[in-house]
This record gives sequence, C-alpha cells and structure tokens, in this order.
Amino acid sequence: MIPQGFSFAAVNAGVKAPDVTRLDMGLVFSTVPANAAAVFTTNRVKAAPVQIGMEIIRGGTLRAILANSGNANACTGPEGIAGARALMQAVADELKIQPHEVFSLSTGVIGVELPVARMLPKVPALVQGLGDNPTGFVASIMTTDTFPKCVYHKAGAATVMGIAKGAGMIAPNMATTLAVVLTDARLTSAELSDIIRDSIQKTFNAVTIDGDTSTNDTLVALASGLMECDKQALQEAIHAVLHELALMIVKDGEGATKLVEIRVTGASSEDDARTAAKAVANSLLVKTALFGQDPNWGRIVCAVGYSGVPIDPTRIAVKIAGLEVVRQGKEAPGFDEQAVHVALGARDIPIEIDLGAGPGAFTVWTTDISYRYVEINAAYRT
Amino acid sequence: MIPQGFSFAAVNAGVKAPDVTRLDMGLVFSTVPANAAAVFTTNRVKAAPVQIGMEIIRGGTLRAILANSGNANACTGPEGIAGARALMQAVADELKIQPHEVFSLSTGVIGVELPVARMLPKVPALVQGLGDNPTGFVASIMTTDTFPKCVYHKAGAATVMGIAKGAGMIAPNMATTLAVVLTDARLTSAELSDIIRDSIQKTFNAVTIDGDTSTNDTLVALASGLMECDKQALQEAIHAVLHELALMIVKDGEGATKLVEIRVTGASSEDDARTAAKAVANSLLVKTALFGQDPNWGRIVCAVGYSGVPIDPTRIAVKIAGLEVVRQGKEAPGFDEQAVHVALGARDIPIEIDLGAGPGAFTVWTTDISYRYVEINAAYRT
Repeated sequence: MIPQGFSFAAVNAGVKAPDVTRLDMGLVFSTVPANAAAVFTTNRVKAAPVQIGMEIIRGGTLRAILANSGNANACTGPEGIAGARALMQAVADELKIQPHEVFSLSTGVIGVELPVARMLPKVPALVQGLGDNPTGFVASIMTTDTFPKCVYHKAGAATVMGIAKGAGMIAPNMATTLAVVLTDARLTSAELSDIIRDSIQKTFNAVTIDGDTSTNDTLVALASGLMECDKQALQEAIHAVLHELALMIVKDGEGATKLVEIRVTGASSEDDARTAAKAVANSLLVKTALFGQDPNWGRIVCAVGYSGVPIDPTRIAVKIAGLEVVRQGKEAPGFDEQAVHVALGARDIPIEIDLGAGPGAFTVWTTDISYRYVEINAAYRT
Repeated sequence: MIPQGFSFAAVNAGVKAPDVTRLDMGLVFSTVPANAAAVFTTNRVKAAPVQIGMEIIRGGTLRAILANSGNANACTGPEGIAGARALMQAVADELKIQPHEVFSLSTGVIGVELPVARMLPKVPALVQGLGDNPTGFVASIMTTDTFPKCVYHKAGAATVMGIAKGAGMIAPNMATTLAVVLTDARLTSAELSDIIRDSIQKTFNAVTIDGDTSTNDTLVALASGLMECDKQALQEAIHAVLHELALMIVKDGEGATKLVEIRVTGASSEDDARTAAKAVANSLLVKTALFGQDPNWGRIVCAVGYSGVPIDPTRIAVKIAGLEVVRQGKEAPGFDEQAVHVALGARDIPIEIDLGAGPGAFTVWTTDISYRYVEINAAYRT
C-alpha cells in the first residue's frame, strides 16, 4: 500500500536523553524529486523548522523529510535554526542530495535546545535503515499519542498515504503538530497546494481539543509523480486521508473519553456556523459536562450566545446524541434527562444545533475534558 | 459599615427543592428611591431577569433588588419572563412600591423553569425579615462559591459596599454572574453609570477562569444619596470595591489552587496587551502547567504567539513568580527549572510578559485548572 517512490526509516537519537530506546528521529526519502506543498502554523511564534520550511517549500520540490519528537526546536533562537540546518546538511550529505531538498519537522517541548550533538552521529544509521516499512517513522513522531496514525486511500492506480501525530494542542488552525501526506500521483506542486489548502478547511481546521495553536503545526505533502491518476479521484482520496487523520487526532485527544461531533445548521453563513460550532467545541463548561454525561444543554446554548454570532434565541434547536433537548430556545417538550444522560455514555456523541436563521452549516469535532487531560498536561515535562 | 438607607433579608424559598434549608432568595431594600445603574452580560442569550433589568434600569431609580440562586431563569421562554415579573409584583405589593422599582437577579442552572409557585408564598416572610445584617443576602446568591464575597470602602462620610457571587463561568466580559454595589453617596444615575463602566474594564472584565460568559452576568449599583461625598474619593472607593470583589471571585474559581496575575507590558497598545494577556490566561495548557507547578514557559510564549497580536518573538521577556525565565524569546541565561518549580508552589503567582514593542500594558487575573475543576463541572447538576 506504500505509494511508489518512498522509503522510510527511524532510529533512537537520544533527543530526550536518557531515553535510549524510543524511536525519536525519522526519515522519509523520495527516490525522485517530489513536487511538494505545505501548510504551516498561524502562530506568530514559529519553531525553527517552520521558519526554514516556509523558505524551502518555495522551491517546489523535496527529496526527504526529517522528523523528530521529544523537542520542538522552538524559542531556541539562532542556535535552533543552526541546529536544524546542520541536521538537514548531514541528511543531504548522506543521501547525496541538497540540504534544501530536506524538509524538517519537530515536535515536543518548547524552549529546550535541540541536542544536535547527540542526533548528528545517528544520521548515517538512519539513512542506511531506509526501507518499505513506515511503522518506525510513524512511531518516531508520536509524543503523547496513544496510537499511531497512518491511513491509505487509492485513487485509481495511485495511492495516497497520510501520517500524523496529534493529541493535545489540537485547535484550528491547524489541527495537528505534524502531518505528512505522500502520493505517487502526478501532480504539480501548485495542484497539490490547492488540494491540501482546500481539504484542510473542513478536516484539520475543523477539529479542536484545547483551543491552543502550536508553534510547530505543519502539514507537508509530497507527490512523486510515478503514477498517472484522475485529478478528481485524487482530490477525493487526499480529502479522505485528511478527514480520517483529523478524526484520529481528536479521538486521541489527551485524556479524552468521547469524540464529539458538533454540527451547526441554520446559520446566516458558513462563517457564522463555524464560529458558533467552535465556541461550543471550545467551551470548558460544555466539555466537562460531556465528560460527566450531564445533559446540561444550557451550556451549549450559552456558548452559542457568547460566540458573537447574531442569533434569535427563541429559534435555537438542539439535539444531543439524536435526542431532542431544545426546541425554540427552551427545553424540548419530550426532554428526558435520564435518557440523555444514558445516551451520553457512548464514545461518539453527535450534537446538532439549528439556529433557524439561514442556510449556513459547519461541522467541527472535539473531545470532552477529563481528569486525565489535566493530569497529562500538568506533568508533561516531568 | 452598612451604607445608610439599605436593609437586607433572605429566606429559603425551595428554589432547588427538596433543599429546604439553604438561603436561596434574598432582598435588598432602599428606604428612599435610589439612583441606579447596571451593566449586563454581552451573551446574546440573555436570561429573563437580564431582559427585564435592561428595560427597567432606564428608569434610573430603584427601591429593591430581589435575587435568587439555584435557578438562572434562562432559556425558559415567555414563562421565564412572566415568572420573574410575578415575583417583582409580589415584592412590590409587600413593600408598597412599584414593580418596576424591583430589580431581579438570578443565578443557577439554565433551562429549568423557575419554581415561582414555591417562591411567591415566601415573599411576605422575606420582606418582614428586612434588617441591618447583610449576611443572609450575601449567602443567598452563592452557588458553587466556597466563601461569601462582601467588601466595604469609605469615601469620607459615605460608604461603598460590594457583594458578589462568582466561581465558574468567570470570563471577560463580564466577570461574575451577580454583583451588587450599594452606596449612600449622592450621585446621579448617570454619574454612577460612568463610574462602574469605567472601573469594570480593569476589574471584572480583567478576570477570567474558563473563558465562558454567562447568560445572567449582571452588576447593579444603587446610590441612596443620603450622604455628601467627594466625587473623586467615591470613584476610588467604588474602584477598590470592584477590584477586591473581582480578585475574590478569581480566588474562588472552581477548584482553583492558585491566583495568577498576568501582566503584559511593552505591547504596541493597551488593546494588544489585553489580547495577549487574555490568550495566556485562557490557555488550558498554561493553566494545567501552573496546576502542576511545571515551569513550561514555552506554553506562555506560544499563547502570546497565537493571540494574533503583532510581536517580534526575539524580543519577548517573561518572568514567573519574579524569576526570569525568558530573555529575547529564548530561555534566560540563569533559568533554573527547579527554582521556578518551587516558586510555583505559592498560592499567588505573578507572570510578567514584556513584548518589547511599545508602551501598551494590561493586567488580567486568572486561576489554574485542577482535577477539582473538572469534577465540579462534570457533576454540576447532580
């Protein structure tokens, strides 16, 4: 199922010494120059690899992706840039390519200098390890992820493969710290760029866990061009890959016990629907109520109210897990608190909010907030 | 210390039956028509008492404040309005005043009909109970508050008294569900309105716990006019009352273990400083790190970055609890992780963020997020 032209490797590079077993540095190699496109974090504080990546992606082609977990290489000043460039150079030397053909990705703790001296000596072993099996590379970008995230879709003879790491800090825009899309389809970098920018709006940019946007969020896509394909089918395959990765990321939200789909309809515009849906998705009070299986629909209506979207409160209708809870802004006639409480015990919870005002609709995905979320994030560095 | 002209009462009115012991309905009475002003929630979904209050405050004078906890009377449709008006009428009849001189305040669960039939018969006892001691009234508006919030300041011979209820759902704008300011100073309602609107910006609107804004947030101020006073001294006294109430509300944030003061300086404008400070204050990742005493300054810089405020990341400086942690966007030379960890054990934590760009400064107050916050809010209705 691997798209033609790509190989993978991963090693332990001691990024987070003294851990010397975990795969923490990974490599993707393309046997031919691949047309490439990328989308980066909107955070004004950009990690070193993001700053470099924004520059080299303008070249339009790449041969390799070098990734590490355990250290974000963010807020580390000129040394951070120099460290990332030294690693790109080492990989390029070993692969006999140019350093500007190596795209780098980092994730992990912010503000700690990348241990380049420990990582550089591992580059030869990394390159020698290149092969068909992507498992090690997928694992090498995981941080607090509890399961690997790798999906495939076919578009005729061509294949689209997607790899991501997610968990906390998942907010629009963007939805993940790192994502890699690989395809053997023949596409220009402009075509690839258009497709990922379009698809990302209703996938990665429509999921949220805690509302924070990281310094490192990057999606990079490579097309080796070895297979002919139908553009429409390919676009659908890439969209399906991004959609599935985005949902996997939400499902793996730190400490999450539920995947919550929030669909707002009847808004004046799609923008209004998105704004209202995100306000509900990011409300701590809604998230904790969901964790507690509390049918507290008032918190949902309240979040819609403070989202700033123009609404007529007497026209709002809400369903939780398919059960009608609000009609015309009030508790629905058949509201059964116990039934909704039981329904909230499910892993997947749809919440439908109809504003009764117009044709605008948007869907976002989020999670509840559990004790475990607090625990993971209170002790991330220890 | 009670300002001249005011008396207080509270009863159990069975708002949350079967609880028949808790004080849940309170009354403030002014022996003379008091000049009045109020500030209301910006949530587009407004509880019934807010809708009524916005209308009657235009009259400029009030004689009474009727408050209840246990039920927000929000999202209850025309019945909610009718219920609030029936209670106002009953109080007015008993006090021999007009219903539009009675201002009503409600707090508690959203979407459940106010049990007016249980509350109405308690109005005579409420009015008969009027006296000098405000303790019962202060208690009657508490929900998940763990301590009563009542402060006094003198302005010459005049007195300013402030009463609030807070805990969760504390976000700008506004900072609390309910607040009452009473003074015996001679002020027009326009003067009173100007003072509270000005003071609220750097007090109630500068505190945040979970970023949600409620359907019921109301601050109402009454001036009985029985004492002469210096306007400047009075303004300072009202500001001091609002400042102290706002900090009490944050300190009592649901499950909070810390009071965190976030001061942003060096921004291009005060607006930019406020935006950056609020992004840090509302970041779940910052809040959980504070709970865990984790010196994770990267999350602070990251939140400043996604706030949208124009910044030069290489000029950011951060101090946590007085200790320098970031200089020129990087870990400060003397950064001692263990020392910051220990300092984060304190109850009061100042965080200073200098953007190095201009004269804009703003301070906000917030709390950490603990296991207990999740617990309280997962089970609020049970």
